Amino acid sequence: MEGFRDFYPEDKRIQNWIFGKWRKIAEKYGYSEIDGPILEPIELYNKSGEEIPEQIYSFTDKGGRKLALRPETTPTVARMIKNKKDLKLPIKWYSISRCLRYERPQKGRVREFFQFNLDCLGSKNQMADAEVIATSIEIMKELGLGKKDFFVRISNRKLMEDLLLDIGIKKENLKDIYRILDKICKYSDEDIKKELREKGVEPKKVDELFKLLKIRDLNKIKINSPGLDKLKELFTLLNDYGVLDYCKLDLSIMRGFDYYTGTVFEVFDSSMEFRAVAGGGRYDDLAGIPGVGYGMGDIVIQLFLEKKKKIPKLNKEIDYFIAPVSEKMNKKAIKIADKLRKDYNVEVEILGRNLGKQMGYADSVKAKNLVIVGEKDKGKVTIRDMKTGKEKKVRI
Amino acid sequence: MEGFRDFYPEDKRIQNWIFGKWRKIAEKYGYSEIDGPILEPIELYNKSGEEIPEQIYSFTDKGGRKLALRPETTPTVARMIKNKKDLKLPIKWYSISRCLRYERPQKGRVREFFQFNLDCLGSKNQMADAEVIATSIEIMKELGLGKKDFFVRISNRKLMEDLLLDIGIKKENLKDIYRILDKICKYSDEDIKKELREKGVEPKKVDELFKLLKIRDLNKIKINSPGLDKLKELFTLLNDYGVLDYCKLDLSIMRGFDYYTGTVFEVFDSSMEFRAVAGGGRYDDLAGIPGVGYGMGDIVIQLFLEKKKKIPKLNKEIDYFIAPVSEKMNKKAIKIADKLRKDYNVEVEILGRNLGKQMGYADSVKAKNLVIVGEKDKGKVTIRDMKTGKEKKVRI
Repeated sequence: MEGFRDFYPEDKRIQNWIFGKWRKIAEKYGYSEIDGPILEPIELYNKSGEEIPEQIYSFTDKGGRKLALRPETTPTVARMIKNKKDLKLPIKWYSISRCLRYERPQKGRVREFFQFNLDCLGSKNQMADAEVIATSIEIMKELGLGKKDFFVRISNRKLMEDLLLDIGIKKENLKDIYRILDKICKYSDEDIKKELREKGVEPKKVDELFKLLKIRDLNKIKINSPGLDKLKELFTLLNDYGVLDYCKLDLSIMRGFDYYTGTVFEVFDSSMEFRAVAGGGRYDDLAGIPGVGYGMGDIVIQLFLEKKKKIPKLNKEIDYFIAPVSEKMNKKAIKIADKLRKDYNVEVEILGRNLGKQMGYADSVKAKNLVIVGEKDKGKVTIRDMKTGKEKKVRI
Repeated sequence: MEGFRDFYPEDKRIQNWIFGKWRKIAEKYGYSEIDGPILEPIELYNKSGEEIPEQIYSFTDKGGRKLALRPETTPTVARMIKNKKDLKLPIKWYSISRCLRYERPQKGRVREFFQFNLDCLGSKNQMADAEVIATSIEIMKELGLGKKDFFVRISNRKLMEDLLLDIGIKKENLKDIYRILDKICKYSDEDIKKELREKGVEPKKVDELFKLLKIRDLNKIKINSPGLDKLKELFTLLNDYGVLDYCKLDLSIMRGFDYYTGTVFEVFDSSMEFRAVAGGGRYDDLAGIPGVGYGMGDIVIQLFLEKKKKIPKLNKEIDYFIAPVSEKMNKKAIKIADKLRKDYNVEVEILGRNLGKQMGYADSVKAKNLVIVGEKDKGKVTIRDMKTGKEKKVRI
């Protein structure tokens, strides 16, 4: 079906390679894997902003309950934390979740995708924000991407709120302004400005706002705001983490979720050809305890890696292919395979093909060695190194 | 929600341990991982027997298409094979799929589960059936289970068909008979006999049928049937594989799917306390090419392993916990963590707790070592072995 992917072995190997990198970095930073159900009560997504609820696959089950196929993981994480009383802090969790969204299929957008989520809960300290952002950068590096390839845009919602109030935007209009600014990558500045004016923001304030959005140096922001202090602390810690070179201040990023309360960040490819590779932030009111985390989908990162030619050649790993020359030799072939499987991946011929065809097949699946089980050689077999073509007789 | 599981870290570790065993054995036998979408057009499950379609979670999407949340994986495998022309034979695939069935929640039955599926396609040879069954036994052994713990019941649908026709049952009634016999584990012999008689099978034939079902020795079956020949060949090969001790002839097993055409088998715990741990068989008409495979769910195997106390203690693996004694030392702590992460899993304090509390936490997450980053020791840190309590100062 359109928008859905079949993972044949060559596709699944790439996916598993990406999953493996996600897991490796998460575990290195002390995060533990979790998972939740793919079906959740639809009310769970009330705080997921505007776009996501429209895209939810939902239906009423036989018991009359309205269910959603999860479009994202953070609400499940928050629910799991609320449901369990004896969790030790900090809670450091990651997950690789199958998620679904009913989007119009297009490049980089499918209806079913896998999302890596990493969340750190229980700490208001910017140490948590810095660590979480650092893991996203380490993952990119682990995937073979460097400073020239990607960057992280960082902002703080509290600071942005104070700045907006400071230029005279009313508190009740903030949510609308966020929603408009969230589209800043998709539309021209003029379109955004027009929409802001239509929302009743004075033209002068619109211009002031756009000046704010262009600031790339925290020291140029002159305002009393706890958000600014937090952001300064965060950038200092990111420097301690040695990842400051990857990070840019960018007040224009909003993230489409209503639940963010502080730090927000997005990982982008340098040429900004693709959508955000990852995005997240701090959500102190969602889970009953403060939290910070992000999601990284498998779609954009794979497109990006393909463009950068960073996906390695991944073959099926067969150490020995056991080739009986005739059906009579099957028993011996099975026994040899059984022994070798203690240490190796071993495939045995099961189609009854002749030796030539078996060799062709073994070659095509990149088997490292071929074991020829002949009728004459009592107690011996011929092992052929498939790369060099060298053969040797070995007692078994 | 009832029937759905949250996987907290300790649950996910157990699941990943089981998944790891599945993957290890599948790869050892030369199978490659695949995956398909969790949503499929509902028509795909027309051949899934009687019980499954009733349990499918289905709904109509915004495009008016009737979709199913996959209740099993084999139809997806068959579809993927039909959709791709250039696949080399044999096709040896496995998958670990999230599946859903709307069942009444009860012990060992949940609405969402994970199923390991292993399929070998392209071969009519019993070598394939034997290999597939052998992998199911190897998985059980890999999970720590032995001869006393489980066995495999094996039959052949073609043989059963010939036996039923031989005792005078009409061809058009075969499907009904299969469906009745499929319930043989759940109901008493008398109930089954009654139901057969109600379906119009003569009492004498019912008795003859029950005699067949008790046969445990292939040599006692005297009938001309290609199914019998296949089954004899299969048992010979299972002997070659060294797994005959785990296998029992049992003509009473049917499997609830309509698509099986030859070998059928089920893995059971010896005391038959649980439902089948795994089940599968040969399906030569489903994928356009002959195939044989099975599914093993995560629910029954885990219950079984818990009963047998075979699940190891699985902790979070933290090699070093970095404990700064004060906020001032965070920077140094981050730098030390960064270095150690090249080779180890490292967690850094992010809550700003005092040293005593940090030690308590490190102990509770079973961190192997604690690195105390003090204010006085310039260029040195104290490393504490959390098991022995021994401390040493180390230059960094």
